[in-house]
Amino acid sequence: MEHKIALLGFGIVGQGLAEIFVEKGKSLAVDIGLNAKVVAISDLMKGSLYHPEGLNLAEALRVVKETGKLDSYPDESGLIRGMNSFQTIQETNADTIVELTFTDVKTGQPAIDHCKAAFENGKNVVMSNKGPVALAYRELSELAQKKGVRWGYEGTVMSGTPALRMPLVSLAGNTINEIKGILNGTTNYILTKMEEGMSYKESLAEAQALGYAEADPTNDVEGYDAQYKITILANVVMNGSLKREDVACEGISHLTPEDIQRAKEEGKRWKLIAACRRDGDRVIAKVSPESLPLTDPLAAVGGAVNAITYDCDLAGPITLIGAGAGRKETGFSILIDLINISRGQL
Amino acid sequence: MEHKIALLGFGIVGQGLAEIFVEKGKSLAVDIGLNAKVVAISDLMKGSLYHPEGLNLAEALRVVKETGKLDSYPDESGLIRGMNSFQTIQETNADTIVELTFTDVKTGQPAIDHCKAAFENGKNVVMSNKGPVALAYRELSELAQKKGVRWGYEGTVMSGTPALRMPLVSLAGNTINEIKGILNGTTNYILTKMEEGMSYKESLAEAQALGYAEADPTNDVEGYDAQYKITILANVVMNGSLKREDVACEGISHLTPEDIQRAKEEGKRWKLIAACRRDGDRVIAKVSPESLPLTDPLAAVGGAVNAITYDCDLAGPITLIGAGAGRKETGFSILIDLINISRGQL
Repeated sequence: MEHKIALLGFGIVGQGLAEIFVEKGKSLAVDIGLNAKVVAISDLMKGSLYHPEGLNLAEALRVVKETGKLDSYPDESGLIRGMNSFQTIQETNADTIVELTFTDVKTGQPAIDHCKAAFENGKNVVMSNKGPVALAYRELSELAQKKGVRWGYEGTVMSGTPALRMPLVSLAGNTINEIKGILNGTTNYILTKMEEGMSYKESLAEAQALGYAEADPTNDVEGYDAQYKITILANVVMNGSLKREDVACEGISHLTPEDIQRAKEEGKRWKLIAACRRDGDRVIAKVSPESLPLTDPLAAVGGAVNAITYDCDLAGPITLIGAGAGRKETGFSILIDLINISRGQL
Repeated sequence: MEHKIALLGFGIVGQGLAEIFVEKGKSLAVDIGLNAKVVAISDLMKGSLYHPEGLNLAEALRVVKETGKLDSYPDESGLIRGMNSFQTIQETNADTIVELTFTDVKTGQPAIDHCKAAFENGKNVVMSNKGPVALAYRELSELAQKKGVRWGYEGTVMSGTPALRMPLVSLAGNTINEIKGILNGTTNYILTKMEEGMSYKESLAEAQALGYAEADPTNDVEGYDAQYKITILANVVMNGSLKREDVACEGISHLTPEDIQRAKEEGKRWKLIAACRRDGDRVIAKVSPESLPLTDPLAAVGGAVNAITYDCDLAGPITLIGAGAGRKETGFSILIDLINISRGQL
């Protein structure tokens, strides 16, 4: 069955997803059962397109690459231009809204309102923005359930590496007592470089030059990015009721070359660890640097890579290592949610 | 809905699974949707029990622990004793046959015939024995599909660590171009000890003392166990058509302390690697020792642990690390297949 999709936002991830559809659309339909058709693209800056029978994605990608806008996408019968995000949610024939707008992680807006509008209109939502899941998980998942639609957010933690779906599907039946992970690639890159002998400032500068860290690196280096992600893991995988501000948070900016050296001498390695665990009926979480023994699988994870360990009562400790960011990787995180919605799978 | 189960074989794994049901049966039903009821146990040596309304598992475990047999399980109205494996498959009301007999890995029997009988009778099969999946994957999976039943075999590779389900469910949509893994815990334990300074013979003796290696260690140290497992991965995850004998196989018994030392000096570490990759339209596979750079996530995996890396075109390289054996872990591998059959999930 055709799965009709509207993209809200056509930046890096949206274009990455469109490229995947152009390149692999046929095999996704035949081999995987995702017969995707993008019927609408609505971007605040680039303009909007809607055609109930589907857009030509190769053409949309071409005009955006050439002009930065969707305005020169060719006219055709049935094409409607200029619909804003809420019109796109409410007035198109899309089954699923892929929410990729520039959303404020602190308020979760406009993505939270987009989710509500979509669910109220009987449409699924897929997104990779952390804000709405960290801030409004219960409310939005209950609304989606009530309306009989799906909400996918695999990409909010570790991008396309299945940090949320793997435990829920493949480790179901275990009681997961603890989760700990390296959930921020920027800080892991900085710590890896410091162990190689660079100072914190030099490592940060290199991470910025490579595009891993932003000009203002606060969100990464003070642990806030990891704090959002562990909040999501605690609530989604361990059925917790955490708010972000419940999660104690300490970053890596105070670590000195001497700290790094001392750990090395003790056969250990500093990592920024986000962790949550059961404490009676509650789930508690924190983010802080830890010096791990080299025998811990997380200690071996170097560079901008992410990793996570689930402590399972039956299956034992299980670790997943993979990318935590990237255009194709985040595009895939959206794709896997769409695939599983189409397949009727978790 | 009630999921009625027959256990063929009541050894370590069967008893481990029964213990999980005794301990967690209620939460599995309420939280996960697996309302399991074991209606039959048939063991060649211990005897057989069948009650269409379900057996008392705590009692069955108790009498087997005390007497080694099921004979002193208390009589009750409706209880039938002495059914053999084929009667248990054909004449009970079980929905799913959990196949845990002592099966010859080289012939796959009697498990292959048990599968055929179950599928022909409209019953699902779940197992952790490698033989039938490595030897008869196409034939049996086609028969199961034709009869509208399910065949679960998560535990055949890496026990309860989801080496088969994770890529099929959570990485769907990727083209996986290569899989490489440490799929045999015994050899990884021996290599870890050799790096710590022991000889091959000393390490093997320690592995035998700990129960990791058998008295005749050929199957592990010459790579045959890993050869079965990579055949399964190649066929199930990469849709290959390999027979076990197509997989070139070299073990670790010829590695010397000098080999280990030289790798150490080069910043590398020997691992017994089972790998498969696409080669045009074909999938090819081999098992051989490789000296990996320490930056490879597989190089850091020490002791009797297993690990596997999937090279994905979209999600990038993704590594999974976990147990490859164990009573509870293998019990879980059976459980997760039962859960996903009950949930209607892949």
